Amino acid sequence: MPTGRTDESDPEVARGVAVLRRMFALLEAFRGSDELSLAELARRSGLPKTTAHRLVGLLVSEQILERRGNDYRLGLRLFELGELVPRKRSLREAALPFLQDLFEATHETIHLAVLDGTDVVYLERISGHRKVKAPSAVGGRFPAHATGVGKALLAFTPDAARTVLARPLLRVTPYTITAPNVLADELRRIAAAGVAFDREESTPGVSCVAAPVLVGHEAVAALSVTGPSARMQPETLAPAVRTAALGLARVLAAGRA
Amino acid sequence: MPTGRTDESDPEVARGVAVLRRMFALLEAFRGSDELSLAELARRSGLPKTTAHRLVGLLVSEQILERRGNDYRLGLRLFELGELVPRKRSLREAALPFLQDLFEATHETIHLAVLDGTDVVYLERISGHRKVKAPSAVGGRFPAHATGVGKALLAFTPDAARTVLARPLLRVTPYTITAPNVLADELRRIAAAGVAFDREESTPGVSCVAAPVLVGHEAVAALSVTGPSARMQPETLAPAVRTAALGLARVLAAGRA
Repeated sequence: MPTGRTDESDPEVARGVAVLRRMFALLEAFRGSDELSLAELARRSGLPKTTAHRLVGLLVSEQILERRGNDYRLGLRLFELGELVPRKRSLREAALPFLQDLFEATHETIHLAVLDGTDVVYLERISGHRKVKAPSAVGGRFPAHATGVGKALLAFTPDAARTVLARPLLRVTPYTITAPNVLADELRRIAAAGVAFDREESTPGVSCVAAPVLVGHEAVAALSVTGPSARMQPETLAPAVRTAALGLARVLAAGRA
Repeated sequence: MPTGRTDESDPEVARGVAVLRRMFALLEAFRGSDELSLAELARRSGLPKTTAHRLVGLLVSEQILERRGNDYRLGLRLFELGELVPRKRSLREAALPFLQDLFEATHETIHLAVLDGTDVVYLERISGHRKVKAPSAVGGRFPAHATGVGKALLAFTPDAARTVLARPLLRVTPYTITAPNVLADELRRIAAAGVAFDREESTPGVSCVAAPVLVGHEAVAALSVTGPSARMQPETLAPAVRTAALGLARVLAAGRA
């Protein structure tokens, strides 16, 4: 069974590894940019221009890249493949009605996130015309300890919490919790209360209330309501967020039974 | 400049093509299945088991696949890459408030779709607890001529309409328009009215009203409201869908100016 380790001493394997790594370097080069020229793609991916040229041609023929004049952009087929990812698809499908309920009840920004290592990855973000400056984008990731959804997940995921607590805690805003003992206390409080608050810890001026979605003993996701601190009363919204998370947990548990 | 054609007589290019094609065959094998064993992956992708084994190992090490016991599933990194696709990201971000408005006004299923060749690809689908049996999933595709959003897009995209009209029209339900002259008339009506109806043409028992999002002379996307024919009155909802589409078009045009 493949283990994730690969025998790169085998020349055929080594060639395969090289092609795939170069491809991912090219795709990642688009982070933050919609369209790139071939020269810029080669520069950002660190590939020789002839190699980049050849690989871009392959990826265009596979519809993973699209050509626009002299520039290139990521193609719809990559989005279609990404939507096949089951952790995203099945969770989002089950969660959406509950996210909609929360949005309709609060008209604030609603998030659905999962833990990936020591980061949270945002699977869904629902917002109306009133937008909030938040670090989240669908498909984006953020250090778990600095967000409401992340703390809600860490409080119920001891292995990940241990890893987070053993490393330096990145200070994202002046309010981010960066002392391990303070974070450990906070996670214990969250585990007891079933709800996590983020008071400008991820974004200045923005607060959030989050609740874990617990199926069995596993926190499979977290939901949150995020808004400007000026108008948000996280404590008031906590019962709504917990209710939505419990409803989603019930649907997911029924699906597993 | 790469053109999408590749010189496969160059042995290095041929090897790169082979690795990438095999990788995409493996990824596509997950369509319709959350988790697959190595044997099933090899069978579905048509790869020899040793080749599948080696490639799966590479993809696990790149976090594109995740191992679950003896099975494999598509990994979160593939979803993250897919969310970088600009046609999806920027359109969805601009469209979401308008989709939310339509949902709140109708409590029916709301779609955002774009044209890709002669298919529509669904970028977003918003629904509440009342779900409708529709062919759409986020990231899914469907023949354009058999859907409301597709007809709305074809009516304003003459090149794609010509291609669609020149080929046999797949009959999806008994009400799908399959006669080219009838479809051509329908597209002319839609172009004049700015709104398209789907009366059980894509799914039995399901109706829809769709409007194109026109920026300049280009139909960059379409919105729709979909619901059971028994309770949907598409004509009544047409002004709401058109209003949302016009609002989104205005935001997109302002972003380009």
